[in-house]
Amino acid sequence: MGIGDDCAVLEPDAGRVLLATTDLLIEDVHFRRRWATPADIGWKSLAVNVSDVAAMGGRPRWALIALACPEGVGIDEGEAFYAGVQTLAREHDVAVVGGDTAASPGGWIVNITLLGDAAGKPIMRSTANVGDVIAVTGSVGRSAAGLALLEAVPAPPDVADATRADVTAAHLRPRPRTREGQWLAAAGGVTSMIDLSDGLATDLGHLCEESAVGARVELARLPVSPTVHAIAKALDRDALAWATGGGEDYELLLTCAPGAFERLASGLAAETGTRLSAVGEMTAAGDGIRYLDAGGRAVAVRAGFEHFVTGRARA
Amino acid sequence: MGIGDDCAVLEPDAGRVLLATTDLLIEDVHFRRRWATPADIGWKSLAVNVSDVAAMGGRPRWALIALACPEGVGIDEGEAFYAGVQTLAREHDVAVVGGDTAASPGGWIVNITLLGDAAGKPIMRSTANVGDVIAVTGSVGRSAAGLALLEAVPAPPDVADATRADVTAAHLRPRPRTREGQWLAAAGGVTSMIDLSDGLATDLGHLCEESAVGARVELARLPVSPTVHAIAKALDRDALAWATGGGEDYELLLTCAPGAFERLASGLAAETGTRLSAVGEMTAAGDGIRYLDAGGRAVAVRAGFEHFVTGRARA
Repeated sequence: MGIGDDCAVLEPDAGRVLLATTDLLIEDVHFRRRWATPADIGWKSLAVNVSDVAAMGGRPRWALIALACPEGVGIDEGEAFYAGVQTLAREHDVAVVGGDTAASPGGWIVNITLLGDAAGKPIMRSTANVGDVIAVTGSVGRSAAGLALLEAVPAPPDVADATRADVTAAHLRPRPRTREGQWLAAAGGVTSMIDLSDGLATDLGHLCEESAVGARVELARLPVSPTVHAIAKALDRDALAWATGGGEDYELLLTCAPGAFERLASGLAAETGTRLSAVGEMTAAGDGIRYLDAGGRAVAVRAGFEHFVTGRARA
Repeated sequence: MGIGDDCAVLEPDAGRVLLATTDLLIEDVHFRRRWATPADIGWKSLAVNVSDVAAMGGRPRWALIALACPEGVGIDEGEAFYAGVQTLAREHDVAVVGGDTAASPGGWIVNITLLGDAAGKPIMRSTANVGDVIAVTGSVGRSAAGLALLEAVPAPPDVADATRADVTAAHLRPRPRTREGQWLAAAGGVTSMIDLSDGLATDLGHLCEESAVGARVELARLPVSPTVHAIAKALDRDALAWATGGGEDYELLLTCAPGAFERLASGLAAETGTRLSAVGEMTAAGDGIRYLDAGGRAVAVRAGFEHFVTGRARA
């Protein structure tokens, strides 16, 4: 780690606020060694933190990495972990400035703390307005489809390699929306933002709760990729449940004034190549959070992403 | 934790450098639930980080707390943990600004990241000079004596309650030298500093390595409290081995120009009530690190604090 002192010494830019986030990732809670390589674990541990900074429109800057491995883990595996961290760190201009190592009596344990900054006022969760458009970057459900495939034993035989690669990469090596978040924050008109870590239903619930509003989501407008539908078919699962409840997509969920949406969507596509999809609107708090099917009927969706626990795959 | 957004938003003071440190503490590696209460774990997890900031002469400011508990741990135990964190946080003006929680498939896992700042140039490990006095705050070996007592089964019968309380508190609820570190940094004349987390021999080794110097320590001058001698006698152990190799005292080990020592020692005592003891001097790198007994003879000391591992007490 190249760190020689008790603390990392950092020089924040004057006039910018500092952003700080931390995430703990634990073997057999957040990942399994059966399907996640050390480099995957390193990449994802940093990615989930980078996504938190992106969700506030911030610039990720400095990471502190704590790693505990069980006895028998070789130097090469530890190095592969840090290489995975560094690969993502380079892509997002993050400097690894410190950390800690320990022995683990159980499985792998990773904690990453990321510091970032923001030029103006960071985009919060608590500032959405009734009438705002609800929009999401990229597509939803790929990570959950990937996890379902990784957990499936035996693997379903009739899944194309490219399809498998698409969804498993979404789960193992998510690509946080750093450029998108910064562009959206600077563009003006975004009223609130959050990243999709716990799943659309849960994270939209956070936005609504913090902003004291309700929401109406049209399920037919959710951007769900063909690969997710293909995996759902192969595993006899529900693609829509992955899209609403799956979690770990690390897309951005945002709200904006209705008049701002087209400008934001076309600008984001032009600037970053990333699609922005309108999926509903914010409503009065008394209306609660409703999900409508293609016929306009309210349907129940599963909210609340639960990580698997030891020895039991997710239902 | 009262945090409602993806990141904590912090406003560093202009013109101060930022200090950042992170520590991972794991049940049955760093502590045992048999003798550490949830509040002890919370206190100490923050204390070890506060000590890192103190060792650079910094001011601790913001903490992020990640906690994973195994199934069956009650809400009350989690609350006791955070209460332990907050008790120490209040003493050192630290604001808990964010965190993470997770399930643990094994024991308790805690990660704390602490941010601090420093007005001038932080005191580093790499800037000691040949001829500098080596000095240490407070006393050494109490934490190791406390750990030995906590690990002793059955407990030795003839240890006074006050003696037991003194050394176990040193281990379970260490008091980081925040005021001392800031005073020493501001006083001028301190050339390098580190906190005693891994034990005098190991941490002095770090100072020497980073500064490219050697050291000579007179063992008879090490400040060892009567309680440590009492515990060593009761357990038939070596107090000096605890003082040099024990670790986790979280005292400050520093170097200063010979002419500055008396001023620093009397000032520190007047300002904080904490004793500063001169224990040796920095020498040429080629001399290595030598420990001399009362007769001036070089003796070997055990360097390298090893945390216990599951199911095996420290030797």
